[in-house]
Amino acid sequence: MNTPPSQQLGHGTPRLSLNRWTLRTTSIQEFLETAASHGIDAVGLWRQDVEEVGLNALRRRVDDAGLRMSSLCRGGFLTAADETARAASLEGNRRAIDEAAALGAPTLVMVVGGITPEDKDIAAARARVAENIATLAPSAEAAGVTLALEPMHPMFTADRAVIATLDQALDIAESTGSDSVGVVVDTYHVWWDPALPQAIARAGRTGRLLSYQVCDWNLPLAAEPLFSRGYMGDGYIDFPSITRMVTAAGYTGDIEVEIFNQDVWATPADEATGIVTERYQQLVLPDL
Amino acid sequence: MNTPPSQQLGHGTPRLSLNRWTLRTTSIQEFLETAASHGIDAVGLWRQDVEEVGLNALRRRVDDAGLRMSSLCRGGFLTAADETARAASLEGNRRAIDEAAALGAPTLVMVVGGITPEDKDIAAARARVAENIATLAPSAEAAGVTLALEPMHPMFTADRAVIATLDQALDIAESTGSDSVGVVVDTYHVWWDPALPQAIARAGRTGRLLSYQVCDWNLPLAAEPLFSRGYMGDGYIDFPSITRMVTAAGYTGDIEVEIFNQDVWATPADEATGIVTERYQQLVLPDL
Repeated sequence: MNTPPSQQLGHGTPRLSLNRWTLRTTSIQEFLETAASHGIDAVGLWRQDVEEVGLNALRRRVDDAGLRMSSLCRGGFLTAADETARAASLEGNRRAIDEAAALGAPTLVMVVGGITPEDKDIAAARARVAENIATLAPSAEAAGVTLALEPMHPMFTADRAVIATLDQALDIAESTGSDSVGVVVDTYHVWWDPALPQAIARAGRTGRLLSYQVCDWNLPLAAEPLFSRGYMGDGYIDFPSITRMVTAAGYTGDIEVEIFNQDVWATPADEATGIVTERYQQLVLPDL
Repeated sequence: MNTPPSQQLGHGTPRLSLNRWTLRTTSIQEFLETAASHGIDAVGLWRQDVEEVGLNALRRRVDDAGLRMSSLCRGGFLTAADETARAASLEGNRRAIDEAAALGAPTLVMVVGGITPEDKDIAAARARVAENIATLAPSAEAAGVTLALEPMHPMFTADRAVIATLDQALDIAESTGSDSVGVVVDTYHVWWDPALPQAIARAGRTGRLLSYQVCDWNLPLAAEPLFSRGYMGDGYIDFPSITRMVTAAGYTGDIEVEIFNQDVWATPADEATGIVTERYQQLVLPDL
């Protein structure tokens, strides 16, 4: 007789959250049921899920599965110089904040946007991000949602996020003067940073460490570099070291596993989730 | 009658150096003649060229073409934990220093090496780099050659160079206590860094800005990400801004164009060199 992994392990995945994109090729219902069946407490969902299922229905499904939300992904895209585009982006971000609140997600992850070959002034784009985040902060405060700025790996600086380091994200968060703006530490995006130990400590000290996301840096890079995110342990990242920094910084929240990887998406959801929980127990949990 | 570009422009490419890899698919002799025929003063060569042609013969060919060398590429690969590998690496680097001196190249570019999935302790690898560079510095001083530490783009941190930022390279250079250790500013590797303006100023202030290399950041990334280096103007990098920082830092040396790109390699050498000089004149030279 086969015993399901969640029963074998007891309830051995405290603080683990499964991000929707790790199992993006399954239906939302199967995703929620798979997470719950593995004893996982929380999930990170995307605005695409809201669009597909509807806000109230999605909240109900998450509740019915006995799960809670660790984060909603994503707001952002705040670099446009054009005033009409800026207004549309702010409006879209306010809707995202409201969605996060309605879903009970404490945090909205912010991917701030890139530059264009036509407007390469990256300093100006970064200044617009800071200004727009400050503009959005009161809406986040009112909704009881935090905005987690995501520094992205510098190979995405051009086209996805002009925030490239954790220190830069913290500079922007602090510049808003709002307690509702903080940062995401995503191992894939920040592991290479020589200033990482000090920056994680700073995030903790200033109360702005809002989310810890884990996955590995696999090589060779996939044709779409975003999809080189791997199971913890398959690549080059030293998870115990980074997890100890996050723990020492006082982080007590969920640890979200967010993997974008064609091989993972081709694996049956239950099997992939088993690997996620096993790697989490081996490489992350001991240092929490 | 066609007038060669170098005569059309007079001698319009002061301080431009052509890196060998920009025309890697041509013979070394055609490379040197093409550079000279475009009025270019200097070239950056590789140790593979020394191996192919021989040290003395290569020096003679460079002299005969009326060129000088801006840099020799490359030393480095100093992260191995194993003592035998470390000794072999130091010995190889001492040979590279001697080759640079014999060629009249003022600077040896250092690509310091990566980590492995078996040994992910990046802090330890970085400490070994600093120690090994300090060990090599006296050899460089004795030979009258500088060691230029190259911070590489963080997408190469795992497998090529654990030095990921200009500030980190400067920290290591300063830690050696030697005036013969400095840094390369290569636009492809550092353009994304939010701390770049201050770091370039620091490199100038401390007398450690040894080399300025230019090429663009093209997207989408090539299957081999190193080969996404493009002609200046084809991608996302703001060359006037970065060149102004380098100029303000007091840099008066050569500007080396180092492009790794399959399309450039498929272009006739004379045509590719014409594009390089034209883009240099448009996007770099005005801010020197």
